[in-house]
Amino acid sequence: MSGRVSGDLSRFSINQMTVKQLSLPELVQACARFGIPGVGLWREPVRAYGVEAAARLVRDAGLRVTTLCRGGFLTAGEPEARAAALDDNRAAIDECVALGTDTLVMVSGGLPGGSKDLPAARERVARALGELAPYAGERGVRLAVEPLHPMFASDRCVVSTLDQALELAERFPAEQVGVVVDTYHIWWDDRAPTAAARAGAQGRIHSFQLADWETPLPEGVLNGRGLIGDGAVDLRQWRERVDAAGYTGPIEVELFNDRLWARDGEELLRDVAERYVRHAL
Amino acid sequence: MSGRVSGDLSRFSINQMTVKQLSLPELVQACARFGIPGVGLWREPVRAYGVEAAARLVRDAGLRVTTLCRGGFLTAGEPEARAAALDDNRAAIDECVALGTDTLVMVSGGLPGGSKDLPAARERVARALGELAPYAGERGVRLAVEPLHPMFASDRCVVSTLDQALELAERFPAEQVGVVVDTYHIWWDDRAPTAAARAGAQGRIHSFQLADWETPLPEGVLNGRGLIGDGAVDLRQWRERVDAAGYTGPIEVELFNDRLWARDGEELLRDVAERYVRHAL
Repeated sequence: MSGRVSGDLSRFSINQMTVKQLSLPELVQACARFGIPGVGLWREPVRAYGVEAAARLVRDAGLRVTTLCRGGFLTAGEPEARAAALDDNRAAIDECVALGTDTLVMVSGGLPGGSKDLPAARERVARALGELAPYAGERGVRLAVEPLHPMFASDRCVVSTLDQALELAERFPAEQVGVVVDTYHIWWDDRAPTAAARAGAQGRIHSFQLADWETPLPEGVLNGRGLIGDGAVDLRQWRERVDAAGYTGPIEVELFNDRLWARDGEELLRDVAERYVRHAL
Repeated sequence: MSGRVSGDLSRFSINQMTVKQLSLPELVQACARFGIPGVGLWREPVRAYGVEAAARLVRDAGLRVTTLCRGGFLTAGEPEARAAALDDNRAAIDECVALGTDTLVMVSGGLPGGSKDLPAARERVARALGELAPYAGERGVRLAVEPLHPMFASDRCVVSTLDQALELAERFPAEQVGVVVDTYHIWWDDRAPTAAARAGAQGRIHSFQLADWETPLPEGVLNGRGLIGDGAVDLRQWRERVDAAGYTGPIEVELFNDRLWARDGEELLRDVAERYVRHAL
């Protein structure tokens, strides 16, 4: 369990949420031991540990922070809620700078309470991106708009397809706003391959994430992402597709899954890395 | 509780599954009492009651059978499973004729075990429709391809959007194959309004169904359809949209919901009819 994982892990990154049972120092140590070069971090555990201390920890271990999760939640209509959301996103951008990552993952937010108006909510996301994009760009941070599976459209993210995410991103320079290609959210969409090619050609694939699709989904559907290789998604085909679109960056595995969180964190991390080699390369 | 529901119910139809706690005779009797002119029936309870007896029951009550649910499940690759599915669909078409309905709702089926190939599964659906469409057309029955929400793509229906359903239907004459517009499955999709307009212009909206979207979704996600008016879907806007596309047929409410099934069936039926008037007209 202690040695390096065999296979080419040069592009592999583990999203912190996948192994949230590990503390940040445990995660960093295990990555070094297994030969894992990248991590995607989450704001809450990073802030609990201390942003500067976390930055030092990963830097000293030679780890690359591939993404920070997450900004967004930009659909509020009321001016106060809206201003608070923009402030929080600027803080997230600053945290990216401190952690040395160039990519902030953006989850747009769901319908505001009582609203049934998806187009209006999407337009508020666009307007908020317009305020945040220059701030991010000046700091060398790219906003990566993540489409979430349509089952999250009402309560978490009104941006449901890669096409929608890309249409938002295309209003801004590519070095300011791009998209996340996450197999879990888009695998079902027959238009997603074309959108991925277009995003790649524009240099707008700012993050590529892998998760598999398994059923039955658990109550609330949030924590049922499949361990890679166990589900319905052709992960290798997606990796090849994104590569063919010109993407050469890190490949992050992000799973939310109660069953996986009940496992030993290091054993799970090793399993995920080995499965990455077996199913995605 | 016993009188007619006030408001214009002339296009209203109750899908049997919505009030499955009612026996077929109870349902028929309650429809007559409340002034509900249409029912969407399901094969299993109809066959349990007897197809001919069920046909007589609804006919004698002056009820219109707006749809029969459901045919489909056409994604199997093995010749025997495929032949069995085709036979079963021909039986469903015959049952439509016996019940006096012109519309068979088609749920295409999920990925066959172990497969990760959505396009191949969709193509098998198209080929199967090619075998069934003339059989249906000769008997005055229209196959209505229903896109199911993308959260069902792996295990229930590889046709996830109205565009995909319409692209399948367009290979055949409109009097043989069309689509189901069900708000539950497509409400999130920014391309669905255009697809609905195209479907209407082609005379291919063969069924229009209402259900609302509520979260959190229950485990397995199948039985969490929202009572109309309680969720995120602008039902009136969808009704107006489908009308504007030229659709003049019945409007069916189809809910699968454990909480609703725990209620008194007649009280629920009345509530649904009243909500239809309030939220969709």
